[in-house]
Amino acid sequence: MNYKMIRYILSVFLRAEAALMLLPLLVCLIYGGESAVWFLASIAIALTASLLLGIKKPENDTIFAKEGFVSVALGWLLLSIFGGIPFLISGSIPSPIDCFFETASGFTTTGASILKDVEALSKGMLFWREFTHWIGGMGVLVFILMMTQLSEGRSLYLMRAEVPGPSVGKLTPKSSSTAVILYGIYTGMTLLEIILLICGGMPVFDSVCYAFGSAGTGGFSITNAGLAGYANPYAEWVIGVFMVLFGVNFNLYYLILVKKLRLALASEELQTFFGIVIVCSILMGISIYPIYGDFWVTARMAFFHVSTIVSTTGFTNADFTLWPNFSKALLLFLMLVGSCAGSTAGGLKVSRIVIMWKVAKRNIFQLLHPHSVGTIKFEGKPVDKDIGNGVAIYISIFLFILTGSVLLVAIEGQPFETSFAAVLSCFNNVGPGLGVNGPMGNYAGYSDATKLLLSMLMITGRLEIYPILILFVPSLWKRR
Amino acid sequence: MNYKMIRYILSVFLRAEAALMLLPLLVCLIYGGESAVWFLASIAIALTASLLLGIKKPENDTIFAKEGFVSVALGWLLLSIFGGIPFLISGSIPSPIDCFFETASGFTTTGASILKDVEALSKGMLFWREFTHWIGGMGVLVFILMMTQLSEGRSLYLMRAEVPGPSVGKLTPKSSSTAVILYGIYTGMTLLEIILLICGGMPVFDSVCYAFGSAGTGGFSITNAGLAGYANPYAEWVIGVFMVLFGVNFNLYYLILVKKLRLALASEELQTFFGIVIVCSILMGISIYPIYGDFWVTARMAFFHVSTIVSTTGFTNADFTLWPNFSKALLLFLMLVGSCAGSTAGGLKVSRIVIMWKVAKRNIFQLLHPHSVGTIKFEGKPVDKDIGNGVAIYISIFLFILTGSVLLVAIEGQPFETSFAAVLSCFNNVGPGLGVNGPMGNYAGYSDATKLLLSMLMITGRLEIYPILILFVPSLWKRR
Repeated sequence: MNYKMIRYILSVFLRAEAALMLLPLLVCLIYGGESAVWFLASIAIALTASLLLGIKKPENDTIFAKEGFVSVALGWLLLSIFGGIPFLISGSIPSPIDCFFETASGFTTTGASILKDVEALSKGMLFWREFTHWIGGMGVLVFILMMTQLSEGRSLYLMRAEVPGPSVGKLTPKSSSTAVILYGIYTGMTLLEIILLICGGMPVFDSVCYAFGSAGTGGFSITNAGLAGYANPYAEWVIGVFMVLFGVNFNLYYLILVKKLRLALASEELQTFFGIVIVCSILMGISIYPIYGDFWVTARMAFFHVSTIVSTTGFTNADFTLWPNFSKALLLFLMLVGSCAGSTAGGLKVSRIVIMWKVAKRNIFQLLHPHSVGTIKFEGKPVDKDIGNGVAIYISIFLFILTGSVLLVAIEGQPFETSFAAVLSCFNNVGPGLGVNGPMGNYAGYSDATKLLLSMLMITGRLEIYPILILFVPSLWKRR
Repeated sequence: MNYKMIRYILSVFLRAEAALMLLPLLVCLIYGGESAVWFLASIAIALTASLLLGIKKPENDTIFAKEGFVSVALGWLLLSIFGGIPFLISGSIPSPIDCFFETASGFTTTGASILKDVEALSKGMLFWREFTHWIGGMGVLVFILMMTQLSEGRSLYLMRAEVPGPSVGKLTPKSSSTAVILYGIYTGMTLLEIILLICGGMPVFDSVCYAFGSAGTGGFSITNAGLAGYANPYAEWVIGVFMVLFGVNFNLYYLILVKKLRLALASEELQTFFGIVIVCSILMGISIYPIYGDFWVTARMAFFHVSTIVSTTGFTNADFTLWPNFSKALLLFLMLVGSCAGSTAGGLKVSRIVIMWKVAKRNIFQLLHPHSVGTIKFEGKPVDKDIGNGVAIYISIFLFILTGSVLLVAIEGQPFETSFAAVLSCFNNVGPGLGVNGPMGNYAGYSDATKLLLSMLMITGRLEIYPILILFVPSLWKRR
């Protein structure tokens, strides 16, 4: 294990975070207010910590998958700690645990909040929260790779640990070029959404914030009433559509860019994902029609909520805790599934579900035809047996963590539905839960222990479990 | 596929069921009442159906795993249909779907009931319900193997499909001898429980019924108030202990019989199972102490309910739907886990959880040490990689069925907790759920579609998924 290189990568992480804080600093300067000084101080603290970790690249810069996992896991923990400093020193969020929760929730694009009155925050702080969504969605490391030439040839190990999905491909031979393409598409789509929102009459600052939040599939709101306060059906349609679009594998957008539209549309994962969105929107519409009684209002509410939950964003414009029980079960189902691999969204991922479905079908078929070959294909390519088994093991570990965490959160004494939804929502980076943690509620009522658990679940879910679990292997911490 | 042999095995199934009905017929004769005629008629119907299927063994009696799966799946469906005939023709349960539900619930040792007033049933009917538990617990096929010499050498395929757990060993080279030993131990333990209950002042009939119900880890009650009506703490302790004992792998009792006690006690699965029972009883006690306020009452209630749920029996003496939310989450956890493989209980099984835990640990360890061998041991023996992967695939398929079924049951419109508990409880053969399906409620309020779904879930869970799923492979039904 190359510990020096891990320390170096962590130092780069902190410098990147300091650089990212320049943007909210700029927002403070534009909109006035005293928050600028807090961001300056936070940048200074992050840079000092980065210096302490050492800024010189070690001579041996060789890293493998294990170093990639460990750096990414520790890097995300550091990001969530240092990213909370502006909230802490400004007094916007007085408790350090709450700061960690809120920042982890930001970077992991969960969007669960402990804030009871979000409107009390300055514009700079509000922007910082949304900006963590935007950066966290595509990946902090991907951002770093784009900006630096971090040991090219080894960086794929870092990307693998951060980009969601059962397998990561590079679009181009160079990781840094891949990162530039991904961030290019991401920025372009975000800009388009900002423009469309501004055209629909939403204030510029709010448009930027909501576009950042939906691009990262985050879900922090900048007003207490969420989107309901704008009473802007057009904006809800725009955001609804974009949330689904940001739940699509970005490789497909690259394919479209290089004029391979037909290949992109042939993606099994995409077709399944759209299928889920359409079928669940119709079911949701049937379930909530009696509440709204109007076709177009029902259609908007149904599609918007399916989109916001399946994309694991979590923006809301209605208190779905008051909806019929069937629609709540449907929301929990969508929370579990999530969106496509290689998107900014969370959840188990549609590709995992599809691969697992095929593995199950093959296994059952082979009971009847023991001598059949039983090769599975996904996206037209044969799936290695190890990948199929790996998906099953991933789902089983997911279930273990989910079950254990629900038990721990249940100690808080809330109804099962509430505890279950809180864990599932945080683990899969959705945001709102049910009961007191619903769209009109928040996570402020939990004990510090539960808040820490949920924060760790967010990071564990965002990094797809293994990078965080590897930290619990004792031999990692033994000096040779 | 040897279709003729499958038909023959199904015919044997029905003859066995007709033979089993002789016992409730005897009970009717002892206790009087007109029920005897209904059992006579049911026996005649089952025998006629058996004759129609053909009673001559086909010349080619070769069967393999696939025939084993299919025969057992269809056999259990037939058992649940024909076993409900006494309820139907006597008018005890007027709806055919309800009869199927109740009988499937009996044979699968679930114990979920659609009866609102169980005391309205005759003694013969009550006995038949409990007797289906007793037979279903150890296995109808195991019973048939004990009574017949069904193509020795091939019968392991049949046992594999019916006996729960990731792997089935034979205690003796001959399957039929194994079956005799298993039923011998089972009968002995049941008799001991009957005697202990009678000594505690419980009426003979009731003692036999409760012993049958707990031996099969079934859970049908013969009184509307359940065990609470007896106000007999001694009986609750006896039943509580026996439910845990019937959740233990029967191979271990065989080891004890052949004086290998130390080997039996060294079983990892046993130790984990007892660990779960002890830890959960303590947690449950802490959770419900404020309700009872007395150490021994709390201890009894806590242990009894942990025992009844972890053994997937489902007897109750209190309305746990009114308990604190943490204790309800704990009950759901126990419902999920279940007991040991090779016992009469349901659930995911402790051995699967232990193996899965080790597979997960190994996979995470190998991320850090890619060149480690990574062999897993369970019960002192190395676990084949295919078995480890098979467990993960089983758990994933389990999660798929659970999720889909919860969505379907949620159409009924009950709270998530209720729908989730109903599916988990039926799928894992527990019995009582939460909400309206709780210990003092029943499943009568569901639509026929939901009742059919839950009945199928019971059988799917009892046979550990694959035998039922194989019925959905289209090529099974194609004539060559």
